[in-house]
Amino acid sequence: MSAEKPQRIGLLGTGCIGRLHAEHLANRVNGAALAAVADINLTAARDVAARFRVNSATDDYRQLLQDPSLGAVVICSSSDTHTRFIGEAAAHGKHVFCEKPIGVNRESIMEALDAVNKAGVKLQIGFNRRFDPSFAKARELIVAGKIGQPRIMRITSRDPEAPTLEYVKTCGGIFLDMTIHDFDMARFLSGSEVEEIYAVGGALVIPEIGQLGEVDTCVVTMRMQNGVLATIDNSLQSVYGYDQRVEVFGSAGMVQVGNRTPDTHVCLDNNGVHTAKPQYFFLERYQDSYLAEMQAFVDCIREDRPPLVSGKDGLAPVLIGIAARKSLVERRPVTLSC
Amino acid sequence: MSAEKPQRIGLLGTGCIGRLHAEHLANRVNGAALAAVADINLTAARDVAARFRVNSATDDYRQLLQDPSLGAVVICSSSDTHTRFIGEAAAHGKHVFCEKPIGVNRESIMEALDAVNKAGVKLQIGFNRRFDPSFAKARELIVAGKIGQPRIMRITSRDPEAPTLEYVKTCGGIFLDMTIHDFDMARFLSGSEVEEIYAVGGALVIPEIGQLGEVDTCVVTMRMQNGVLATIDNSLQSVYGYDQRVEVFGSAGMVQVGNRTPDTHVCLDNNGVHTAKPQYFFLERYQDSYLAEMQAFVDCIREDRPPLVSGKDGLAPVLIGIAARKSLVERRPVTLSC
Amino acid sequence: MSAEKPQRIGLLGTGCIGRLHAEHLANRVNGAALAAVADINLTAARDVAARFRVNSATDDYRQLLQDPSLGAVVICSSSDTHTRFIGEAAAHGKHVFCEKPIGVNRESIMEALDAVNKAGVKLQIGFNRRFDPSFAKARELIVAGKIGQPRIMRITSRDPEAPTLEYVKTCGGIFLDMTIHDFDMARFLSGSEVEEIYAVGGALVIPEIGQLGEVDTCVVTMRMQNGVLATIDNSLQSVYGYDQRVEVFGSAGMVQVGNRTPDTHVCLDNNGVHTAKPQYFFLERYQDSYLAEMQAFVDCIREDRPPLVSGKDGLAPVLIGIAARKSLVERRPVTLSC
Amino acid sequence: MSAEKPQRIGLLGTGCIGRLHAEHLANRVNGAALAAVADINLTAARDVAARFRVNSATDDYRQLLQDPSLGAVVICSSSDTHTRFIGEAAAHGKHVFCEKPIGVNRESIMEALDAVNKAGVKLQIGFNRRFDPSFAKARELIVAGKIGQPRIMRITSRDPEAPTLEYVKTCGGIFLDMTIHDFDMARFLSGSEVEEIYAVGGALVIPEIGQLGEVDTCVVTMRMQNGVLATIDNSLQSVYGYDQRVEVFGSAGMVQVGNRTPDTHVCLDNNGVHTAKPQYFFLERYQDSYLAEMQAFVDCIREDRPPLVSGKDGLAPVLIGIAARKSLVERRPVTLSC
Repeated sequence: MSAEKPQRIGLLGTGCIGRLHAEHLANRVNGAALAAVADINLTAARDVAARFRVNSATDDYRQLLQDPSLGAVVICSSSDTHTRFIGEAAAHGKHVFCEKPIGVNRESIMEALDAVNKAGVKLQIGFNRRFDPSFAKARELIVAGKIGQPRIMRITSRDPEAPTLEYVKTCGGIFLDMTIHDFDMARFLSGSEVEEIYAVGGALVIPEIGQLGEVDTCVVTMRMQNGVLATIDNSLQSVYGYDQRVEVFGSAGMVQVGNRTPDTHVCLDNNGVHTAKPQYFFLERYQDSYLAEMQAFVDCIREDRPPLVSGKDGLAPVLIGIAARKSLVERRPVTLSC
Repeated sequence: MSAEKPQRIGLLGTGCIGRLHAEHLANRVNGAALAAVADINLTAARDVAARFRVNSATDDYRQLLQDPSLGAVVICSSSDTHTRFIGEAAAHGKHVFCEKPIGVNRESIMEALDAVNKAGVKLQIGFNRRFDPSFAKARELIVAGKIGQPRIMRITSRDPEAPTLEYVKTCGGIFLDMTIHDFDMARFLSGSEVEEIYAVGGALVIPEIGQLGEVDTCVVTMRMQNGVLATIDNSLQSVYGYDQRVEVFGSAGMVQVGNRTPDTHVCLDNNGVHTAKPQYFFLERYQDSYLAEMQAFVDCIREDRPPLVSGKDGLAPVLIGIAARKSLVERRPVTLSC
Repeated sequence: MSAEKPQRIGLLGTGCIGRLHAEHLANRVNGAALAAVADINLTAARDVAARFRVNSATDDYRQLLQDPSLGAVVICSSSDTHTRFIGEAAAHGKHVFCEKPIGVNRESIMEALDAVNKAGVKLQIGFNRRFDPSFAKARELIVAGKIGQPRIMRITSRDPEAPTLEYVKTCGGIFLDMTIHDFDMARFLSGSEVEEIYAVGGALVIPEIGQLGEVDTCVVTMRMQNGVLATIDNSLQSVYGYDQRVEVFGSAGMVQVGNRTPDTHVCLDNNGVHTAKPQYFFLERYQDSYLAEMQAFVDCIREDRPPLVSGKDGLAPVLIGIAARKSLVERRPVTLSC
Repeated sequence: MSAEKPQRIGLLGTGCIGRLHAEHLANRVNGAALAAVADINLTAARDVAARFRVNSATDDYRQLLQDPSLGAVVICSSSDTHTRFIGEAAAHGKHVFCEKPIGVNRESIMEALDAVNKAGVKLQIGFNRRFDPSFAKARELIVAGKIGQPRIMRITSRDPEAPTLEYVKTCGGIFLDMTIHDFDMARFLSGSEVEEIYAVGGALVIPEIGQLGEVDTCVVTMRMQNGVLATIDNSLQSVYGYDQRVEVFGSAGMVQVGNRTPDTHVCLDNNGVHTAKPQYFFLERYQDSYLAEMQAFVDCIREDRPPLVSGKDGLAPVLIGIAARKSLVERRPVTLSC
């Protein structure tokens, strides 16, 4: 253990993902201490504070941002508050970890990034999958040249169970809520930017979603600037569990990442060979990656290095998602002007 | 063994695939006898005939078609001769097995199908992959409802080594030569027709192919009439061997088909876990399916049943391939008017 | 979270496994609080106490046992102290979790079990593998009758790297140090006791081990009372990582448990298909099981249920190990008189 | 194809395995021609002859052996006739391929081997598994040093369905009928001879087998002369299909050979992940190896090379099987005096 004092960190938002980060910061991230909690629901803030032995709990995020003892904040509030909180936290000189999406339109994101630049603080976006051991290994092998020049990429993300219609109405659409992780993965693994995108989709799971002009199933094709042809397929409902796979095919080979199962048993009987379904959902599958991303955030502060997921990495997938929506609506490929 | 006399069958074309069918007809298909061989190269025809103990060899296909002792012919000649040979064989009352593609344009194919209908003979197209035990099993599970309503389909076909530029110039383009099998697979597994298609591609393996206006790598997205969203990816060069996979995702589950390896060894050492590459190419991977499709052809004659791959099944993928090419050139989705 | 007060637990021994349990008790086991630490090395005791915010640290285990606020102790000291500590802890009315082996000879173990019985406290032995999700699943499937009547069992345990000669001299021999886990697994999965045992072995890794009369590689065959024929193979050196597998074959099927890998990547290239080695060693492979066994211990105290690994479960594998040694030395099968 | 005349070969015995070899010799082995068939059942001999276009069929094996046009014979008659037929065939100057076991006692085998030596003909024993692509690959990797010095070997052979009691009574016992293949595999993969053997077993599948003094389930432990510790497990009944696996663990790694499945489908649903059972039995699993061993036999004649499975390779497993039986009966390890 380092002799250095731990980085005191404040948490904004105590929903599901906020509580997850709270536990990591309180007990498992080296060099960090969860020191303050804010939530518009004061009871929720106090609950989390009590559970992790934190003295400061508030329903006024500004109070938390003004606490001079805090070096950094972790933003887990609703998506529409992200850019505002980033801007204000930066103005108070706090380093910022912000959950995805960084924002929902280009202008407010640019403003937030300006504030971060001006303040000279660090900003890391919560694209946790980059820290998943398997995706990180795939990236490592690609960068090391093991598959040569990438040519084709296939990304699959399917959720185990569709959310409520209520959630669908407010989440910003499948591309900004779900596919955004896959857009990030495409950039992460190809090391390139999207040039052109084409999206098709349908309301195959929940017909009512179609009446909202939304889709619950989609296939996206992207041409990357370096020539890679990439596809993403998404579904809001996969009965066999969370399905998170990637495959990158290149001139010298291919790397694939598969799912994990809760156990490794194999059962053979008269009907066939049977094994466990993939892990249920993101809390199980990405457990390690959530811890690793937070450790990386704390480490980049302590060692004064650039964060591994930058503000630009936060912006790009939002723009891709907006283009995907345009393609879906206009039924034609859309060029990105990055 | 049946007491019935074997079906006497004539072979047109003794290239690689023609010789394969010859061996099966001569030694391994029950109820069939290879009885005559024709090839524009007389030496080649005689060679094959001698090897399989066949008395009749000619360089004039008309002579073979006029042999009244033959009940059926197997057409393995060059693609541009297929519709003509089908039409003439039908006119002579022969049942016809024809290699893919059935033809290269709609008009000549329609003429050939008319001739077949008029003559009341059977016509089976060589989409052998339908007879591969794994793809057939996938279809069986889908038809049995094991995955519920199909929603997303992914098809991968990658060849181990790019052909010569000469071949590329004459083969009719990637969509009619290679992807045509995948178009057939999409119809076979989804049980539906293509409604709209979008194709992107590049000359990532052999730049010279690009100068011919051709691609060696492509990704195709199709919306099927029953709502399934399907993607196909193709590459002319896969260093780890022939890659032939399919995945169909539905409301109640998913079925996948993977590659086979020449052996089942697993070697673990200090560097990792190592197994064999997939089988090298189509002759290895589809060995069983070539035998099974020919047995099915002979059986449908003897039992007077409709062939499992019809003339319509031959036509549809050609039209899809032509639409794919149009999409690639015009850079937009193309609707099929079936 | 329960409203009940957490169970206050004292730790005896702060070696590698002691520190692991300390972290779990301090941060991750529900309903428990690490409240005191003892180690003959006072600095080590203080270190662990400081790291986990524990006020009480001592080099006198008796002081810890006399602390009336403690409801239970976790014994992680050297094997030769286990039975003494169990006896004294029981006499002080503490529930006891004790690392394996419970002891090194039958007499002292019987005395400790008597003390436990007399005091009416709970005793759980640290056969953590029973709590591994995969082995637990195998047991669940067997008990549910999925493989019918078990007939053949195969257990493989191989360590990644041989320990020092010094360790080998003091660890009590391979059967009591390493195979003991496999003896427990055989009982756990077969639900039966060993009737006869036959052991062969050699010093194939480290010749010097042979000069000590010890072996580093062994194969053990056991006939269980219910007719199951079981084999165990062990090696002190597996270059591809920790190898922990089990297979139980029965009248209606078979269940197997395999290794886990640090990630799920698959890399295909010109040489073959490559994946990650199994996890390095027990701290990685059994991470979850160590937490689960401690949670189960705390739960059985709070809910007043019998521990899932009893004192008898601690004794039996020691007796099997002693018989295995006898078989190895006398080169003949040895009958157990349980 | 070679210009050389094909080797004319006579078949002795037209049971299941005899008909398999007949088809290979008639249609698929290069450089060979099936030229005569003998069986004590004349109808059976004529049947096979007719099916494969062979003119000579007899119920008198001596007539076949006297045919001067035959260069070699393939012996597929009942086990108790093997050594006699080998001896007489050799005396007539025929090369001999003989199914396993070469014989049932040491004396008659030695006599047959003497006759072969005296006549200078080639003798190959039907240990077909050596020609299975996966086992051959395992051997290749071991010989190439990929796993270093072998230390532990595990062999599993389990039949899908128990034979009739009648068969059990006459087959010579499990060790000479079934385990004999595994004894050969142990020698093949370890490159060493058995030094000591210990066998346990039970009548767990068919109690009546026990009353015959036989077992249907067994576990055999062998110490090889080079220090390898090997185990074999056998069962006459495996509900999930034919189970044929091997694993060789060494100082630098491990090689495993697994089963094959009829297809490669994977089906995921709400209950788990499901794949096909292993291939049903030896005709499916070892199809390729039967063809390869016969090709190797013909090639070794034509190229005048020693056969890949020698007379000594035929003798050794018989002696091991006799020792295994002795161990089972006397309940103690038995030393082999090779």
